[in-house]
Amino acid sequence: MNFLEKKILSDGKVLEGDILKIDNFLNHQIDVGIMRQIASELKSRFSDVPVSKILTIEASGIAIATMLGSLYEVPVVFAKKEATANSTDDKYESHAYSFTHRKNVNVYVSKPYLSSTDSVLIVDDVLANGEAVHALIDIVRQAGGKVAGIGIAVEKGQQNGGRILREEGYRLESVTIVEEMDWKTQTISFRKQ
Amino acid sequence: MNFLEKKILSDGKVLEGDILKIDNFLNHQIDVGIMRQIASELKSRFSDVPVSKILTIEASGIAIATMLGSLYEVPVVFAKKEATANSTDDKYESHAYSFTHRKNVNVYVSKPYLSSTDSVLIVDDVLANGEAVHALIDIVRQAGGKVAGIGIAVEKGQQNGGRILREEGYRLESVTIVEEMDWKTQTISFRKQ
Repeated sequence: MNFLEKKILSDGKVLEGDILKIDNFLNHQIDVGIMRQIASELKSRFSDVPVSKILTIEASGIAIATMLGSLYEVPVVFAKKEATANSTDDKYESHAYSFTHRKNVNVYVSKPYLSSTDSVLIVDDVLANGEAVHALIDIVRQAGGKVAGIGIAVEKGQQNGGRILREEGYRLESVTIVEEMDWKTQTISFRKQ
Repeated sequence: MNFLEKKILSDGKVLEGDILKIDNFLNHQIDVGIMRQIASELKSRFSDVPVSKILTIEASGIAIATMLGSLYEVPVVFAKKEATANSTDDKYESHAYSFTHRKNVNVYVSKPYLSSTDSVLIVDDVLANGEAVHALIDIVRQAGGKVAGIGIAVEKGQQNGGRILREEGYRLESVTIVEEMDWKTQTISFRKQ
């Protein structure tokens, strides 16, 4: 069992409706030590891959992306979900259904921040149905760049995002994959990797 | 002139309507080296103040908050702008008008993540009218905690957020304060600190 699996067992909670509540250390309150370990683990798993940019989506992917960008010493780009008044650049645009917020969101990256020479490591805190990651892949492709890989902290193995991405041929590394969970007994099991 | 002022002059742009476009290194694409320097500078300015938690608001404050939390080795909390399906906790709730998105937003922090024993350093990337910071102050007060200080990367000195917060007695440290800018000549001047 790795550090993140131990942390999930000690600090996480399973809620009814297949919800893993880990917002006390991953995506509302952030345990910076765990974040650093997640970033180190992802960097070591992708050690054979050149990375020129880290790409994530606001908001909860930003902490891991920042830690990872700092380890790689490459720029971090976070895709935005709404156009802002401060950006007049042309944009790459895609869309994703957010199960967390139960609505479709637009996803943008300003064109100057991704290019055809980029080898992009896409990262996020949680992978469920893969909607957000697919939007980011779409944006990297629009820029003509290469998806170096996809790095995830917690993959929810019961949902099909991970399976689809692997079938599509992407190099996907998840620090942990939750295989099964039961809110009645508060048991969580992880996939052996 | 400090490192951030130099960076703004070399990489920033002034747009019509008093908009400082620095999203190529601060809040869309992130220059991790500059982020680290901002975090170090804020930590050194608040070196006389005990800090048990870093509080920011999603999304663009998260990168600085993560870097700063990592320097302090304390938890980072980011306030959310929408309730999510994954949180069943009671929440502290406030609201702020977002000039960037031109709408009112609700601002939440789950109650377990702030308490009356916390000495909270509030941080954000940009301070303009201070709406977001005031919402975060309101939330810290609801929790019964203490606002240790407010750390900002770029304060827009032409807008009144900074003046109001200082008049209210808060310890506000901005790595740089933009005093005047002119989109026609692309000149930017900074307040001497």
